[in-house]
This record gives sequence, structure tokens and C-alpha cells, in this order.
Amino acid sequence: MTEQKKTTIVLFSGDYDKAMAAYIIANGAAAYDHEVTIFHTFWGLNALRKDEPIKSNKSFIEKAFGKMMPRGADQMGLSQMNFAGMGPKMIKQVIKKHNAMTLPQLIDMAIEQDVRLIACTMTMDLLGLGEDELLKEVEYGGVAAYLGEAQDGQVNLFI
Amino acid sequence: MTEQKKTTIVLFSGDYDKAMAAYIIANGAAAYDHEVTIFHTFWGLNALRKDEPIKSNKSFIEKAFGKMMPRGADQMGLSQMNFAGMGPKMIKQVIKKHNAMTLPQLIDMAIEQDVRLIACTMTMDLLGLGEDELLKEVEYGGVAAYLGEAQDGQVNLFI
Amino acid sequence: MTEQKKTTIVLFSGDYDKAMAAYIIANGAAAYDHEVTIFHTFWGLNALRKDEPIKSNKSFIEKAFGKMMPRGADQMGLSQMNFAGMGPKMIKQVIKKHNAMTLPQLIDMAIEQDVRLIACTMTMDLLGLGEDELLKEVEYGGVAAYLGEAQDGQVNLFI
Repeated sequence: MTEQKKTTIVLFSGDYDKAMAAYIIANGAAAYDHEVTIFHTFWGLNALRKDEPIKSNKSFIEKAFGKMMPRGADQMGLSQMNFAGMGPKMIKQVIKKHNAMTLPQLIDMAIEQDVRLIACTMTMDLLGLGEDELLKEVEYGGVAAYLGEAQDGQVNLFI
Repeated sequence: MTEQKKTTIVLFSGDYDKAMAAYIIANGAAAYDHEVTIFHTFWGLNALRKDEPIKSNKSFIEKAFGKMMPRGADQMGLSQMNFAGMGPKMIKQVIKKHNAMTLPQLIDMAIEQDVRLIACTMTMDLLGLGEDELLKEVEYGGVAAYLGEAQDGQVNLFI
Repeated sequence: MTEQKKTTIVLFSGDYDKAMAAYIIANGAAAYDHEVTIFHTFWGLNALRKDEPIKSNKSFIEKAFGKMMPRGADQMGLSQMNFAGMGPKMIKQVIKKHNAMTLPQLIDMAIEQDVRLIACTMTMDLLGLGEDELLKEVEYGGVAAYLGEAQDGQVNLFI
């Protein structure tokens, strides 16, 4: 009997294209029957934000971060050739043309395939993000949760 | 008998310095007798572009991406301190001074050492890149091809 | 008897937030009893710079890189939302508020936990950095030193 293979991804980046790459690999690995975990930290947490504003009791700096950071996967910019927001529009147009999946669709697919989406609680604190601002499918954990998975993983990536 | 070790790199970035790092690790691993694969996706595909313009039948957005993206390894910018193109010139000057290898030389060396260079067909579609625009040594595949290699790899990196 | 697990990180990036992530994972892995190595290359070398200027005999370009690059962990910018230096100040304020650790503190902790900090000699040459400019705890090596560790590692990341 072969043990189930494991893929873990640290999604640090808040870029639309990098998050796409992370979720494409995650979905591929899940289809390949890997156990898959995406650990969202720093700007990667933005992929998990709900797209509506959430009322909350934040300090000034937390409010500032909350306002400036993209609210959800669909609002994220590109790592290269962002052109003040034109780049993501272009990418979304070609995604549509080629019947490829957008980032929100890739995230939905990952949830359907039981990819575990973990939000890093330490960086949520730093950026002032609350659990009520993130998708309901999200689990919460710290670096220990990540390492517990990664040390048994065959494919471990930092994106 | 020990099995041959395996290194896989996803080259996502289109930055000269990051591609250098990817190819230096790949060449090192090949010299160490690893089986090495570099899977080029998104902006990392630019490292594989031929340096002359290729006539092709593209849509407007594909043409726009094609024009704006660097045509080949030698045209790529730096991830930090790019200074509107001054950074790469400075780096190339110090590479020359220290008798180190430029990115195109590192790619040639990888080809000589049988490093497999795979281009991600899905992102080629998105960015409107055709096979006639890429180096002739390139192989083509998707996320399944990547995972098939990576799940048996000892060193798997996302760059 | 179980063999000791191993974590290796290539720290390529010179961003404060990415270096924080690298050192948080490294410290976590060390606490988990992994043998941990951080291999600093390109802009990641800046995390190891002493914060005072060092007199040295450099070429013009080396001097330029030396001046423009941040002198030590505390001077580094953010990968996203840097806002001409405002971002790092905001992050440091929230770190303080949440009693979290700053990057220099994370580096000190890594040294205390015997995380091996290796500086890539090849990129030190390229960027014109000398051993007298880096922290005294630093070891020196090339890509072979990195691969020697990584091929036996369970968790290998490129940051």
C-alpha cells in the first residue's frame, strides 16, 4: 500500500497571477490524489477575503491596511505588468477567451476538492484581519500547523 | 544502488536575477548528477523566447502582451533595483568583470547538461505565446507533467 | 531511531516581509527540532549586513550597489505596499503593538537556535559585498553547499 502523497503551499504573495499559479498547482495535486494544504500568510491572506466590507473595531493602522489591501481574490493586482490595474483586466479577458478559470473559480474548485485553506493567525493579527472578514471555509493556524504538514510533504512550495 | 536524485523548479518569475538563481541551482544540481526539470510558467516563459520578433496571427491583447514582454533572457529586468533598466546593465557589467555567466550562457549550459526545459502550455495560451517563438530545445506540458516530476523530487522550488 | 529532519531556505528576496516569513519558518522548524539552514543569495544578503558603513576598496559599481542596498535587516522595504518606506514603518508599529518580533530579533533568535546562516559567495562577488560587511555568525558557501543540504531536506523553500 502506498501512502497518500502530500502537497503544501505557503501563499505569501498577494498577486493575482501568483495566487493563480498556487491554486492551479493545488488543484492539480488534488486531482492527482495528493492531500493538499495552502497556508495563507501576509498578502496571500487577501485571496481569502470576502468581497464586501466588514464592520469591525480596528485601530487606525489596521483600518488603513484593511482599506488599502485588495478585498478578495478578484481585486488583486499582477506581480509583473500590472499597469495600474490594466494588467489584471487583460489577464481576465484572455482567461475568458480561452475558457480558463479565474482566481475566484480556482478557489471554489479547491474548496470542492477538499484542499485545506489555512489562514496564518499571526499575520492576521499584524494586518488587522478578523475571522469574520475571511471565507467561511478557512481554517486557522500558525507556523507549527504548517510545519506539521510540510515535513511529511513531497511537494512543498513558497509562492 | 541509490536512485538518481531529482530537482524541479517552477520558474514563474520574469526577472533576470530570479531566472539567474533558478538556472544556477539547476546547473548545480545537474552537475551533482540530479535529474533536473525547469517548468516555465507565466513570465518565466520569457526566458525561453527567441530574441527576434516572430510573425504570427494574434489577437490584439496577445500582441500587446507579446510586445510588452521581454523577448528572451537578455531583455529581462531585475526584481529589485531595476532603475528603469540600469540595474540589469550594472549586473551584466559585474558578471563580466567577475567572469561569471550571463543568463543566456546559463541557459545554454543547462541545455548542454540535459536539464529539461518545459513550457507551460496553459499560460502560453493565456499570454499568446506560440511554439515558434520559443527556443527549439523546449518541451511542452501542463501542471500534470510538473507534478509527475515534483512528487518524486528531493528539491522542489518555486521561483 | 528517527533521523533528524531538515529544513533549508534560499532567501533570495531583500524584502522585509519576505525575510520575516523566512525567519519565522526557520525559527519554527528549529523549535520543531529540524536542522535548519538559510542560504542567503542576491538581495537576501542584505539581511546579514551590519548596520554601520564599512570602509572598503570597491569599484564604482560595487560602491553604487553597496550604497543603494539596505544596510541590514532593519532597513529593508516591503514586497507590497511599501509606499516609499511608509509600509515598513506601519508594519513595525503593528509588530510592536502585538508584541511580535521584528526582523533583527528574528535573526538573533535564529542564531541562538543554531540556524545556519550561509552567505552565497558568488553573489557577494557580484554585488561587491565583503565578509567584513556581514554579521560575524555568517558562514560562506556556494550552490554546492546549498544542494548538499537541500537534497536531504524535508522542507526546501525558495523565498
